[in-house]
Amino acid sequence: MYIGIDLGGTNVAIGCVDEKGNILAKKSFPTESKRGYKAIVKEMADTIHDVMSDIGLSAEDIKAIGIGSPGTVDRENGVVVFAGNLDMVKVPMADELGKYFNVPINMENDANAAAYGEYIVCGHDADSFLLVTLGTGVGGGIILNKKIYRGFNNAGAEVGHITVMMDGEQCTCGKKGCYECYASVTALKKQTEDMIKKCPETMMSEWVKEHGHISGRTAFECADKGDKAAIEVRDNYLKYVAEGITSLMNIFQPEIIVIGGGISKEGDTLLNPVKEFCYKNDFNKFMPKTKIQIAKLFNDAGIVGAAMAAKM
Amino acid sequence: MYIGIDLGGTNVAIGCVDEKGNILAKKSFPTESKRGYKAIVKEMADTIHDVMSDIGLSAEDIKAIGIGSPGTVDRENGVVVFAGNLDMVKVPMADELGKYFNVPINMENDANAAAYGEYIVCGHDADSFLLVTLGTGVGGGIILNKKIYRGFNNAGAEVGHITVMMDGEQCTCGKKGCYECYASVTALKKQTEDMIKKCPETMMSEWVKEHGHISGRTAFECADKGDKAAIEVRDNYLKYVAEGITSLMNIFQPEIIVIGGGISKEGDTLLNPVKEFCYKNDFNKFMPKTKIQIAKLFNDAGIVGAAMAAKM
Repeated sequence: MYIGIDLGGTNVAIGCVDEKGNILAKKSFPTESKRGYKAIVKEMADTIHDVMSDIGLSAEDIKAIGIGSPGTVDRENGVVVFAGNLDMVKVPMADELGKYFNVPINMENDANAAAYGEYIVCGHDADSFLLVTLGTGVGGGIILNKKIYRGFNNAGAEVGHITVMMDGEQCTCGKKGCYECYASVTALKKQTEDMIKKCPETMMSEWVKEHGHISGRTAFECADKGDKAAIEVRDNYLKYVAEGITSLMNIFQPEIIVIGGGISKEGDTLLNPVKEFCYKNDFNKFMPKTKIQIAKLFNDAGIVGAAMAAKM
Repeated sequence: MYIGIDLGGTNVAIGCVDEKGNILAKKSFPTESKRGYKAIVKEMADTIHDVMSDIGLSAEDIKAIGIGSPGTVDRENGVVVFAGNLDMVKVPMADELGKYFNVPINMENDANAAAYGEYIVCGHDADSFLLVTLGTGVGGGIILNKKIYRGFNNAGAEVGHITVMMDGEQCTCGKKGCYECYASVTALKKQTEDMIKKCPETMMSEWVKEHGHISGRTAFECADKGDKAAIEVRDNYLKYVAEGITSLMNIFQPEIIVIGGGISKEGDTLLNPVKEFCYKNDFNKFMPKTKIQIAKLFNDAGIVGAAMAAKM
């Protein structure tokens, strides 16, 4: 049995994962990062015992533990180098957890772990596979030769930070015009808000009053009902999503690209226009095309990927 | 001894390359693609005999032959699938050359071959290495795990066709806003031309009269002499170059990125501002940085890379 830990800014999710990537039990608890990493790791250890006992097993049945952490990770030393949303700088996470369990502990960047999780369940053993996650930001990961691609310094695969619009929107990373500034759900919400300001008569104004807030669903739902302003927001957003995916296709020509994140639950409404744009605009006109599909694991991808990367 | 063939739209360059990637002899002849591939391959064979005899060797001393071809290449079958500037569609190049030499013949995309050539001479055995070639277009190649990265369909590594400006300049590939439309020498010439139209009093107008044409050097030379309009063209161009390289750094975090193509002969005038932009704007703030440097082989990269890829 393998343990996968998805260490997030809000929650820590922990699962028991079998050899094939199935989650047999899982639990989560609030991260409460202000209490410091030792208290968090203590609760991780307790929760690992809990999930193992839920399926009638004990700590002796654990073969390896994988942790997916946001930010920059030093894999060799099992250290969270910097994770802004966890208030963590140079935290020796693996050593600390190693005080509770005498098994190999592997650390990954959380986006890389999620990509590997999706690869396990929908990668069909491909030699080249990309995950693009459309969420608060745009993250993702790259699987080449069946392994996580990390770059020479473990800081690679920041697919959300390719420039798609020089001198465009300011990104939190410091650069301007990043893919994330156009294709994240945060960006979609801003695009929705801007359109509501420009066209207050849009059905989206009603939607927001009814729901009390703007969400990634606002434009999609109102577009479904035929609202012109919403259709414009949705279609522009889908084009933004497709622009970045086309760039990644032109660079990698991967066998499979998978789109994840909450918004990908829109399914074919999202997938079909993106595919149409990508297949029309990608550089490759003569060879077989990359498969583009929707992710399968969503929030569980981090647990599965962290566990399976620890198995590697 | 290995033979490297750089099959170009204008010339075919052929070299004898030793185990370490040194060219011991080379010759070239005009491609004249209209005569058909069989005549071209016949002249390739004759030229191979010539270069071998130049260094006192014969065809028996050849261990393998590598061909770098523009366009789309089917490596498994040694076929040029499509190369517009050679008027070639589904040409069985390797089989044809195999009629003259009973040795392994390997085909590569020419940009991938060039990347591998530069990797051999300035890659320092790195696990991850990128070449970005600023020429008529923007080409390049990716070396991962010491091997050419080609994608699942051999059509990968089109680094010139990532979108840097959505809905920007029309690219020959069909998409808009490609990196190539801003960072190629063709683009630089257009940027120079546009500035001359806008500010006819610029020193660049004189330069063009003197030389009879606009070139990639126009803006660089006049900027060196302090011409403000030329400085603006040069600095904008260097920012465009850097934007694409920053995107590639964020995706790959490669150990080394090498900039090739004629314009890279500008040396530090090109390299230093590009490095400054990339190191300021790349996503990685905590781990070691990618080395960015100027290519070494230039026009010989294709010969060396094709030969060394055939050795692999």
